[in-house]
Amino acid sequence: MILKTPYLMFLGDVPDALAAKTAQGVVDWRREQCLAQLRLPGCGADLGLPEMGVAEAVAAGAKTLVVGVVNAGGVLPDHWIATIVEALEAGMDVASGLHVRLRSLPAVAAAADRTGGQLVDIREPGRSFPTGKGVKRTGKRLLAVGTDCSVGKKYAALCLERDMRAAGFDADFRATGQTGILISGRGVPLDAVVADFIAGAAEWLTPDAAADHWDVVEGQGSLFHPSFAGVTLGLLHGTQPDAFVVCHEPTRTKMRGVETPLPTIRQVMDATVLLGRLTNPDIRCVGICINTAKLGEDEARACLEAASAEHGLPASDPIRYGTRPIVEEVGRVFARP
Amino acid sequence: MILKTPYLMFLGDVPDALAAKTAQGVVDWRREQCLAQLRLPGCGADLGLPEMGVAEAVAAGAKTLVVGVVNAGGVLPDHWIATIVEALEAGMDVASGLHVRLRSLPAVAAAADRTGGQLVDIREPGRSFPTGKGVKRTGKRLLAVGTDCSVGKKYAALCLERDMRAAGFDADFRATGQTGILISGRGVPLDAVVADFIAGAAEWLTPDAAADHWDVVEGQGSLFHPSFAGVTLGLLHGTQPDAFVVCHEPTRTKMRGVETPLPTIRQVMDATVLLGRLTNPDIRCVGICINTAKLGEDEARACLEAASAEHGLPASDPIRYGTRPIVEEVGRVFARP
Repeated sequence: MILKTPYLMFLGDVPDALAAKTAQGVVDWRREQCLAQLRLPGCGADLGLPEMGVAEAVAAGAKTLVVGVVNAGGVLPDHWIATIVEALEAGMDVASGLHVRLRSLPAVAAAADRTGGQLVDIREPGRSFPTGKGVKRTGKRLLAVGTDCSVGKKYAALCLERDMRAAGFDADFRATGQTGILISGRGVPLDAVVADFIAGAAEWLTPDAAADHWDVVEGQGSLFHPSFAGVTLGLLHGTQPDAFVVCHEPTRTKMRGVETPLPTIRQVMDATVLLGRLTNPDIRCVGICINTAKLGEDEARACLEAASAEHGLPASDPIRYGTRPIVEEVGRVFARP
Repeated sequence: MILKTPYLMFLGDVPDALAAKTAQGVVDWRREQCLAQLRLPGCGADLGLPEMGVAEAVAAGAKTLVVGVVNAGGVLPDHWIATIVEALEAGMDVASGLHVRLRSLPAVAAAADRTGGQLVDIREPGRSFPTGKGVKRTGKRLLAVGTDCSVGKKYAALCLERDMRAAGFDADFRATGQTGILISGRGVPLDAVVADFIAGAAEWLTPDAAADHWDVVEGQGSLFHPSFAGVTLGLLHGTQPDAFVVCHEPTRTKMRGVETPLPTIRQVMDATVLLGRLTNPDIRCVGICINTAKLGEDEARACLEAASAEHGLPASDPIRYGTRPIVEEVGRVFARP
């Protein structure tokens, strides 16, 4: 799945910024790929991009109309369809992160057939994968794992890609979820892959590479989450990471959506090494990423210092302070560029 | 997914017994559900059942035509379709374990629409599942885990169901793969469930039950198999077993289909307890099932005695010697019926 850039971000008439969170993620991380936004009357979200209609955006080079919103039920409102058809007629592809499949909308399917435009449902793998092989591949891989879902694994991986590149590393972010795919323009929606092929899909996503190349892989779920640990383990085995970071949200007491208590950073570190050794005997933790958004400045610094001291590893909040200490550790343990 | 019995076993014209392995499994374990077999000229397999045509089988009470064979590519040969259509016209349902979907065959789909007959593709979940919740359920569960794929987990679970029932336990086999589903007439093809719902499907399969009821669950893969460990972990978390047995094949040196070495029984025991504690803190191993088919009598007994002594648990070959010592252990640790 590879998306053509730049994007025209279509927000429809969603009521607020939260409903446009996926689109906002793309703007936060790939501003240069976002040409403009297209909003319908009544839209309550604003990405801060230039406003353009379809014709103007195409003239300016837009290649894909991105429906980067979430809404109750995952359906596409009928009054959004005209804009999508217009984009196809103007020669654009259309990408959507909604649950509803673009091709299931007759007017959209007909327009795509007429124009040859690509319809990309980000939540669909779009291809089949072989089963995992467990054979060691060339190149290096860093995986973000977490004490829970939604603790900042994607943003940690994106920060690490940015900071590793700034330090001269050859590093590529590898998306495993829909927002990550829209941000990087490619990837595998791992949660939608059929169970037998999770590890195989992760292997496909992080293929053989140059010895000093790093794939920085977006994590999914948690080995200790009772709903999603199978996805996490398949991703760990398939990625065969040389290095991993543990992501954590210090104010949370229960795992997201369930009553299970949060594991400790140490438990996640130990389980990741124990299970990860199957496909990479040299797997090791290189740092801790803590989402301190709910803490004040002093609290945040104290929390990071305590975690660093306890585990003997660099700890940072990627968004607040960047990930340079962790990139330093990667250079120290492996090789500096 | 619930199949109506008894079955008319359709073997087509497969060349040998191996191609009819799925059907043979049903006959081995549920002879009373297998009314007859229907073979086309040239068929090299024989289940030892009475031969019947469709009309005769329906008159004798057959409810489902079971296509219980495997063939290269998973396709259904064109010259088998007339028999399937005939079965539908005669009022039967049709169940298939082939990769090809019955409804994708126009003549079969049309016949089913005319007659209202059910088309059951065993390899399809046939319904959606919620995500796993991790909440403790009532009743007891026993899961077969393994050092590898295809080491006898299904047969161990079926033996345990039989021997537990003989000892007075209220026990039900719970199928997680296609042969197991055909044998027990219900279940979930776990390897075909979308990744995010593995644990949820396992929870659905083993719901709240009476305090002394045992679900005896067919295992899948291995926590140490680099292709399928995610499925294994999701099944473990969703099943939340009170007890488990470790299944092992002592002559194997590499995991099935890959180059990864086999883990030890101890490694599997420890990893299962460590990870299984998330959804059942009291999880414990109650025995070891060793597939000694490739060993002579003396070798087999020595192998079982060594495993039992090393781990302080009963060890048996379910097919060769039954699972009574393990059922004894279940009664000793939990409650005897």
